[in-house]
Amino acid sequence: MQGRITVVGLGPGDPGLLPPLARQALLRARAIVGYKGYIGLLEPDVLEGRQVVSTGMTGEVERCGAAVDLALSGVETAVVSSGDAGVYAMAGLVLELMESRGLLDTLDLEVVPGIPALCAAAALLGAPLMHDFAVVSLSDLLTPWEVILKRLCAAAEADFVVVLYNPRSARRKDQLPAALAAIAAHRPGSTPVGLVKRAYRPGQEVLVRSLANLDPEDVDMQSILVVGNSSTRVAGGRLLTPRGYAGKYGLQEGQASRGL
Amino acid sequence: MQGRITVVGLGPGDPGLLPPLARQALLRARAIVGYKGYIGLLEPDVLEGRQVVSTGMTGEVERCGAAVDLALSGVETAVVSSGDAGVYAMAGLVLELMESRGLLDTLDLEVVPGIPALCAAAALLGAPLMHDFAVVSLSDLLTPWEVILKRLCAAAEADFVVVLYNPRSARRKDQLPAALAAIAAHRPGSTPVGLVKRAYRPGQEVLVRSLANLDPEDVDMQSILVVGNSSTRVAGGRLLTPRGYAGKYGLQEGQASRGL
Repeated sequence: MQGRITVVGLGPGDPGLLPPLARQALLRARAIVGYKGYIGLLEPDVLEGRQVVSTGMTGEVERCGAAVDLALSGVETAVVSSGDAGVYAMAGLVLELMESRGLLDTLDLEVVPGIPALCAAAALLGAPLMHDFAVVSLSDLLTPWEVILKRLCAAAEADFVVVLYNPRSARRKDQLPAALAAIAAHRPGSTPVGLVKRAYRPGQEVLVRSLANLDPEDVDMQSILVVGNSSTRVAGGRLLTPRGYAGKYGLQEGQASRGL
Repeated sequence: MQGRITVVGLGPGDPGLLPPLARQALLRARAIVGYKGYIGLLEPDVLEGRQVVSTGMTGEVERCGAAVDLALSGVETAVVSSGDAGVYAMAGLVLELMESRGLLDTLDLEVVPGIPALCAAAALLGAPLMHDFAVVSLSDLLTPWEVILKRLCAAAEADFVVVLYNPRSARRKDQLPAALAAIAAHRPGSTPVGLVKRAYRPGQEVLVRSLANLDPEDVDMQSILVVGNSSTRVAGGRLLTPRGYAGKYGLQEGQASRGL
């Protein structure tokens, strides 16, 4: 191999949620490539003495191309994003670029897993993901809206908990109400909805609402939404999706419990 | 509050993937409660001098009940599981127990997010989760098989990438072939399937197969399966699900790239 690219997910952004392997990969790199908002999450010692390639949100292809060029020239290179590198993030674009440039046998690609935004949001909300869930991005820039809507309907009808990424941006406000309406066609308005903004970052907000009373104006691009399934309830201000269906296990000590 | 329970996801098991906040929560605890297989993932310094409550896999309700009792008696208590504490794990059972025992205002509950098995598997497979995905457990001990099957069919028909948890155990071998058949009704046999066993642990295995040629005998309880969507392909031996639909973005430097 002629060089290496390591794709590192920074997790929610709190250094306390960056695992040691991710930190080691950053310290090993001589060049760090990423959206400037994510570079800003890094501690100064990780950036010190390193080449930093940083552009705005829409420069993803250019950034990953620059990372490939750096790695080809022998510079140990890390590409960073928030959350997990493998969930709607940079691992795929780097691999696509390596493929399209015929470099799959020339460059080594390592992906370091991280804490995805869906887990950060779930932890702050309580326990909404104890049962099957579907993850859908509402961004329609790369995906036709009809495909997104079909997935939302399928997930709602099959009683998945639904996690929404990229729910709303300043330019893209129509999708969220349409998405919530699609889910509400299969679930009561009282279904709990959790909204987490800037999880584990300054300005963190955690709101518990319902399908009927969620105000889309509360939602921004740094939000994750979790819509409960038919058995999700609110317990002590938190979202709780029971692990199974009622009666399948007892909660009194000594009663039979589940196996796997 | 009369006491505190912290639910900590240990991630895949490699200490290099345990974030500092999780480690701090373990070191702060005076009692650590968990399935013995997970306790075994912990480094000795985390266990030293601490009360350890550990039972086999089927003792979940008893274990969490013991954790609640410990916390009520004023002992700082951590409940551990592998992966993320909020994905099919202990956060929900602790919250359910607190609710059923009327302790929601008596005990403080903190959930520390971790790296879920789905992200560990995805990192080792390449980039299969670049687009919408559904997560389904095939364990039918707490969930009727018809519900599981309905979800699999819905996810497959709506072209989700599908992540399968608990795909097969020594006693439960029939679900996996039925699940794969349900997905194959909506997707070609050539669809790539990734199989990861013991991610980031001794004995790790990463296999890339297809819907048609996956051998269920290769799959065990410590496996995660990722079934591609209609655009997932194999690139350099890895799974690659493109971020959007072909033509929506160019991979040549200088071409327009995506925004959000």
